Amino acid sequence: MSIVLASASPRRKELLEMLGVTDLKVIPATGEEVAPEGVGPEELVMALSAAKAAEVAKRCDRGDVVIAADTIVWHHGKVYGKPHSRQEAIEMLESLSGDTHQVFTGVTVMYNGHLDIQSEMSRVSFRQLNRQEIERYVDTGEPMDKAGAYGAQGKGSLFVRGIYGDFFNVMGLPLCRLGEMLNKQGVGLL
Amino acid sequence: MSIVLASASPRRKELLEMLGVTDLKVIPATGEEVAPEGVGPEELVMALSAAKAAEVAKRCDRGDVVIAADTIVWHHGKVYGKPHSRQEAIEMLESLSGDTHQVFTGVTVMYNGHLDIQSEMSRVSFRQLNRQEIERYVDTGEPMDKAGAYGAQGKGSLFVRGIYGDFFNVMGLPLCRLGEMLNKQGVGLL
Repeated sequence: MSIVLASASPRRKELLEMLGVTDLKVIPATGEEVAPEGVGPEELVMALSAAKAAEVAKRCDRGDVVIAADTIVWHHGKVYGKPHSRQEAIEMLESLSGDTHQVFTGVTVMYNGHLDIQSEMSRVSFRQLNRQEIERYVDTGEPMDKAGAYGAQGKGSLFVRGIYGDFFNVMGLPLCRLGEMLNKQGVGLL
Repeated sequence: MSIVLASASPRRKELLEMLGVTDLKVIPATGEEVAPEGVGPEELVMALSAAKAAEVAKRCDRGDVVIAADTIVWHHGKVYGKPHSRQEAIEMLESLSGDTHQVFTGVTVMYNGHLDIQSEMSRVSFRQLNRQEIERYVDTGEPMDKAGAYGAQGKGSLFVRGIYGDFFNVMGLPLCRLGEMLNKQGVGLL
């Protein structure tokens, strides 16, 4: 039995390694998953994580444990993805400044023909930011590969007044929930 | 100007390095700070962090920025320190299981004759744990050098359902608050 991470995210890989998963195989989903339209953020991340898991499971043994996840930042009724430009990163951070947004992660575990799809939500409160610190932060390059244009673990931590929920969910993988999902399949991480 | 960390904690050092502090000097306080009696958790950690900063500042230049911190776990009106034995670690974790406790960190910044002492509180909610997973966790050795017998970043993350406040406070250094304290002294981390 191997644990397969169906994601190219280096942060998710690091988190599983932090939990002591040493025999981890990384097989990122290659297809562009199609987001369902007109659904809420929970349904969206659950559907996308399930699609990733299904795609990667085809390339795995039935006895492998496949873990897939999809994370979005949700603010004022909109999905904030990775910024496409310096200007877009600045605008996202200005919009998050002094306000509380939500982070949703869908997690799918496939094992032995069982499929478990769940979602986790955390709230993140930013302190008030000024234009100068936003620009300096964007110039570090940290925001460009991250949904919402910040990393909760990194210099972005200077902006985060508080988390309400699972911190690791904000990094892309809700570890407490994932541990329970794996326990349910008889796969213990302790 | 150097930034001096008045703490032997490897986690605090890692957090400052994560923020890009490259010229960090580590000078742990050597004296056994005496905890004031009959005070609440906030006053306790503020007093202890100030005592550490004062002791280390004597060995620094006036132009150095000295950062000291003291962290405790507070549950049912008692301070939970580092466990002294396997049995004590098990008892602490049984007491934290399925309940919410508080983590207090006092932070002191000394610079150029200015002294700033603050405290930060985060709540941590544990899911319900069973005896077997508590024993397995204690056997990993992770709890033994940590207040409250767990690490929020490590396998202990499997127990933490949610944080309410600054996650890094639970690791021993509230980064958002520290950043603001340093900004006030004209020391920018961005």
